[in-house]
Amino acid sequence: MITIMTVSELTKAVKDAKNKNLTIGLVPTMGYLHEGHASLIRQSAVDNGLTVVSCFVNPTQFAPGEDFESYPRDFTRDRKVAEKAGATVLFAPDVSEMYPENYNTFVLACGVSEVLEGLARPTHFRGVTTVLAKLFNLSRADRAYFGQKDAQQVSVVEQMVRDLNFNTAIIRMPIVREDSGLAKSSRNQYLSDTELQEATVLKKSLDLAHDLIRSGEIAAGKIKAAMTEFITQTAENARIDRIDIVDNTTLADVETITSTVLIPVAVYIGKTRLIDNIVVPV
Amino acid sequence: MITIMTVSELTKAVKDAKNKNLTIGLVPTMGYLHEGHASLIRQSAVDNGLTVVSCFVNPTQFAPGEDFESYPRDFTRDRKVAEKAGATVLFAPDVSEMYPENYNTFVLACGVSEVLEGLARPTHFRGVTTVLAKLFNLSRADRAYFGQKDAQQVSVVEQMVRDLNFNTAIIRMPIVREDSGLAKSSRNQYLSDTELQEATVLKKSLDLAHDLIRSGEIAAGKIKAAMTEFITQTAENARIDRIDIVDNTTLADVETITSTVLIPVAVYIGKTRLIDNIVVPV
Repeated sequence: MITIMTVSELTKAVKDAKNKNLTIGLVPTMGYLHEGHASLIRQSAVDNGLTVVSCFVNPTQFAPGEDFESYPRDFTRDRKVAEKAGATVLFAPDVSEMYPENYNTFVLACGVSEVLEGLARPTHFRGVTTVLAKLFNLSRADRAYFGQKDAQQVSVVEQMVRDLNFNTAIIRMPIVREDSGLAKSSRNQYLSDTELQEATVLKKSLDLAHDLIRSGEIAAGKIKAAMTEFITQTAENARIDRIDIVDNTTLADVETITSTVLIPVAVYIGKTRLIDNIVVPV
Repeated sequence: MITIMTVSELTKAVKDAKNKNLTIGLVPTMGYLHEGHASLIRQSAVDNGLTVVSCFVNPTQFAPGEDFESYPRDFTRDRKVAEKAGATVLFAPDVSEMYPENYNTFVLACGVSEVLEGLARPTHFRGVTTVLAKLFNLSRADRAYFGQKDAQQVSVVEQMVRDLNFNTAIIRMPIVREDSGLAKSSRNQYLSDTELQEATVLKKSLDLAHDLIRSGEIAAGKIKAAMTEFITQTAENARIDRIDIVDNTTLADVETITSTVLIPVAVYIGKTRLIDNIVVPV
């Protein structure tokens, strides 16, 4: 694995790979790699001749007051995780390399980015699509790998790729979990031992929703109420931010469940906001 | 030359060319091709193994009330002009092929798109950059050719390419003119014989500005006043929309001329809005 810090070196590495007719896989990350990222890298290494892992805490997807400054970083560890999982290039640019002086261009995938997480974070997905448009062009990736944990993010990226005719296939990979059921996340390291235990309510509440739908419940309101009751009664330090039941394709709110739904939850455990989701086929 | 109407056929033609290691040139047009377009196509045919000419009146760059519906179209003639100039692929998609149902993604090159033409047409350049991002991805062009007549458009596209790291070099080609000096334009066909004569005031006013700067005038206000007086006294049916003197790189307004300036003019001749410009190196 080689580590690259500049756009010009990445461009050269990509050109060399293209000249060798290698396919290119991209795993875009904000670093602090965990088993979820590693699963994406391993899949890319199986599918492609060159696997580029980008490691870039992207400022444009954080709003003022969010955790851009304090977002966890551990580049030494990231290098080991990426290499072990099969990355061939680790791309870790400075902010000034990605957003030089006078930078002023943005990509907006409207609609699907304006619901759910987009409501509370109106500029978040604009930052995501902008940096991914750059990374897709820089890496000239044949395939890019995303985790289902950020389900809405994958839908937003799929829309951008479809609408702007990017030549990159989006590969959506399953959520990787701790033995406790807790979805792997870079932000889990903020949690105390007690909070780590309490954080398992996210997945458990999703399992409850799954079971209710399987047993015939079609009223989204009743399911959300049951999830809310379960979370608040089970975890003292949990504060529900959002529970949604939406159409799995359009992400539009669903009242009566008649087709496959996505159920995303966002819950504060102490000061840490965690997300998880489940898709329930109907 | 082959004519292609669909995205899937274009993707296949581009893939075939890439497999043969041909470089690809793109000449994006709204059709109604004239000698200006032909000069771009000829240059692309010299530089590249495959030249894609797109012929698409792009609805997203017209505002309500502008001339999208009445914009001149003559596809039979366009095919002849493109083929004669050396195009290998003519891409002429329907609107539904470029903007299918639920299309909702946009590219914004802020700053340079918000001055000059962008002031009166606030959504125009968003449409331009969006359709060009699509065409760059679809054609996988190594080079794309633009006429200096739309000087601001070229600057906006250059910014998008630089900021989003597109792998397409932007080639800026000189304005092609009638013997009278009038810049070639698809909209010239709206003009009566009298108006065609009067339309020559655009270039003549630019020559006047050039001569004033060459003879030492550095006050932009005085130059604009002289141009205004010349145009209104020379052409009865001329109504000045804009005369600007801006920095040639940033397109920022200039009061005292100390570096190379771009002087764009927009003048109505009768009901037709014509544009022209000159770059004066300082």
